[in-house]
Amino acid sequence: MTFPVVGMVGGGQLARMTHEAGIPLGIRFKILSDTPQDSAAQVAGEVVIGDYRDLDTLREFARGCDVITFDHEHVPTEHLRALEADGVPVRPGPDALVHAQDKGVMRARLSEIGVPCPRHRIVTDPADVAAFAAEGAGADGGDGFPVILKTVRGGYDGKGVWFVRSEAEARDPFLAGVPVLAEEKVDFVRELAANIVRSPHGQAVAYPVVESRQVDGVCDTVIAPAPELSDELSGRAQELALRIARELDVTGHLAVELFETRDGRILVNELAMRPHNSGHWTQDGAVTSQFANHVRAVLDLPLGDPRPRAPWTVMVNVLGGDYPDMYQGYLHCMARDPQLKIHMYGKDVKPGRKVGHVNTYGDDLDEVLERARHAAGYLRGTIVE
Amino acid sequence: MTFPVVGMVGGGQLARMTHEAGIPLGIRFKILSDTPQDSAAQVAGEVVIGDYRDLDTLREFARGCDVITFDHEHVPTEHLRALEADGVPVRPGPDALVHAQDKGVMRARLSEIGVPCPRHRIVTDPADVAAFAAEGAGADGGDGFPVILKTVRGGYDGKGVWFVRSEAEARDPFLAGVPVLAEEKVDFVRELAANIVRSPHGQAVAYPVVESRQVDGVCDTVIAPAPELSDELSGRAQELALRIARELDVTGHLAVELFETRDGRILVNELAMRPHNSGHWTQDGAVTSQFANHVRAVLDLPLGDPRPRAPWTVMVNVLGGDYPDMYQGYLHCMARDPQLKIHMYGKDVKPGRKVGHVNTYGDDLDEVLERARHAAGYLRGTIVE
Repeated sequence: MTFPVVGMVGGGQLARMTHEAGIPLGIRFKILSDTPQDSAAQVAGEVVIGDYRDLDTLREFARGCDVITFDHEHVPTEHLRALEADGVPVRPGPDALVHAQDKGVMRARLSEIGVPCPRHRIVTDPADVAAFAAEGAGADGGDGFPVILKTVRGGYDGKGVWFVRSEAEARDPFLAGVPVLAEEKVDFVRELAANIVRSPHGQAVAYPVVESRQVDGVCDTVIAPAPELSDELSGRAQELALRIARELDVTGHLAVELFETRDGRILVNELAMRPHNSGHWTQDGAVTSQFANHVRAVLDLPLGDPRPRAPWTVMVNVLGGDYPDMYQGYLHCMARDPQLKIHMYGKDVKPGRKVGHVNTYGDDLDEVLERARHAAGYLRGTIVE
Repeated sequence: MTFPVVGMVGGGQLARMTHEAGIPLGIRFKILSDTPQDSAAQVAGEVVIGDYRDLDTLREFARGCDVITFDHEHVPTEHLRALEADGVPVRPGPDALVHAQDKGVMRARLSEIGVPCPRHRIVTDPADVAAFAAEGAGADGGDGFPVILKTVRGGYDGKGVWFVRSEAEARDPFLAGVPVLAEEKVDFVRELAANIVRSPHGQAVAYPVVESRQVDGVCDTVIAPAPELSDELSGRAQELALRIARELDVTGHLAVELFETRDGRILVNELAMRPHNSGHWTQDGAVTSQFANHVRAVLDLPLGDPRPRAPWTVMVNVLGGDYPDMYQGYLHCMARDPQLKIHMYGKDVKPGRKVGHVNTYGDDLDEVLERARHAAGYLRGTIVE
């Protein structure tokens, strides 16, 4: 058999679920994991324990892999270039991935190709933040605050992001010595995500555009498809994601997080070039999951059908609560809802940590939402009846 | 986390797919496999290489497992009793499993509880086979042949089964010195399978009854639900399977292979107490797969919904053909049918060996059947256009 070997850097839940999706495909799957206890390392057959920041470790890991792909965006660009120079296909490649690693590079490139973004620029100190704010001050005579500040690298799930109301509040982001990007606070009605998958030979599939609801900067609920989204706006969002993938030469899964503004525009918030939380619903709600399509794409295999299998699918994240043991809640949820799809990551429970998610699907959105919320809340311990 | 550990004896494709189904459940899964190359051993995180016929190996494997279950029926009954005596839950237990291990015991017990079976008895030599045949000779003056002979233990997929037309043809089955069971050749219109899952506390779910088509004694195609099966007969088959599970105290998945006779009866052909080929369609066609429900059942967790997600689901086995490399066929199948669900087992291709299966689903049975047959035939190499 000449079935290929996929090497995934990172042992988190995305690698765990990608491995799961790769099993029926008959694809051999290797994981480079920080520890043997990592989410994916617990369940995968071929696990290398090592540090992804070390080039020798990456080179050793890549030996025998037909392609290298990622659970996260943290591998240094120069290491990826070195792997490519060794002849290892890296998907997405370093020139694409840098746009998911560095928000400054991303904003510059998207603006260059005419993709609508929030007003933004790199800022140098709190005074410069006040200047950036003033540039956006409207006719109302305000100072242009609040402003969003982001370190250009390293942030996720609300970390590395500040919401500042004044120059005085704008000091912390500069303490780390990392470049800081300022962005206008967008007046959005909701957040959307356009998930697409693209292969090296240029085939691409677009999943239905979803609504993504955040709590404290962390994804909480995803509704597929986004309720009451017009065909026009949905098509525009999918088109935008496909265009970004093409222009940036993204291979694999691309999540484009969007703001839907009060005045009917869509602006790009973030990019992720890997399976993404806003696509977890596809495991139970789409013909082909984002994980299976990511594997197919990085191997340049024909892509699977991205269409939904049910009128509505809802995903709710399961965050760690105050009780370290979820097993009793898990029993309750299974007994209450035999159609519930639970996805646990095998991670120790810590307050606020993503330790799993649940998917529900059906014909009635209210009912589907209630089932998912109840299950996630019960697992976390915020619902007890 | 107190999430439990399931130990599965055997590293074949059933263990591979059970492991896959266990990942989202957050269940730790250990496999006892003959070699590191076995289907499940390639993809599972915790693999012990050892001989399941050796009690010390089994005992060592069982340490740290909350329950022991099986990929196959070949573990000696006395070893299972020893594990139980050690305090390890074994599901299904040895008293149930013996009915899937020994066809003589199975026939005796089913007859005792009034389950309709083909006419049968243990035979001692070719002359006794002729006597058994004569006992069934009809008014037509024939000799009662043909007769089916089966070694009571060790047969599968047509192995250990003989179709004999005369006393002279009845010698081979006795050569191994194993007891031989004679059964009438049933005049059936088709084969059905009733798959149910039962947990230790007695909860049970029944999947839709399926039609199973064999080629050369090996399962080829499964159609879910069985076309044009009356509600009455379907209900009777499900009821029969549930009754067998209860009477024999089966825990986990039970497949009851049935003959539908020309005169509208159903007779039990075989029992399997593990996930079964006739249930592979549930991976893509049911709310909860047989594999996920087997895991839930052996852990005494609440069971998942067994209902179908599409009007028709078809499974066709992929057998090895003359070409050892299926990768080109695999590319073709994915490109031709983006909705196709391929399940490869990671096994080397040998002619006639089960190396995977495909599932298709949809609204139109003819189209769903054609898609599955084309894909399986193309992978095997019997269809080339």
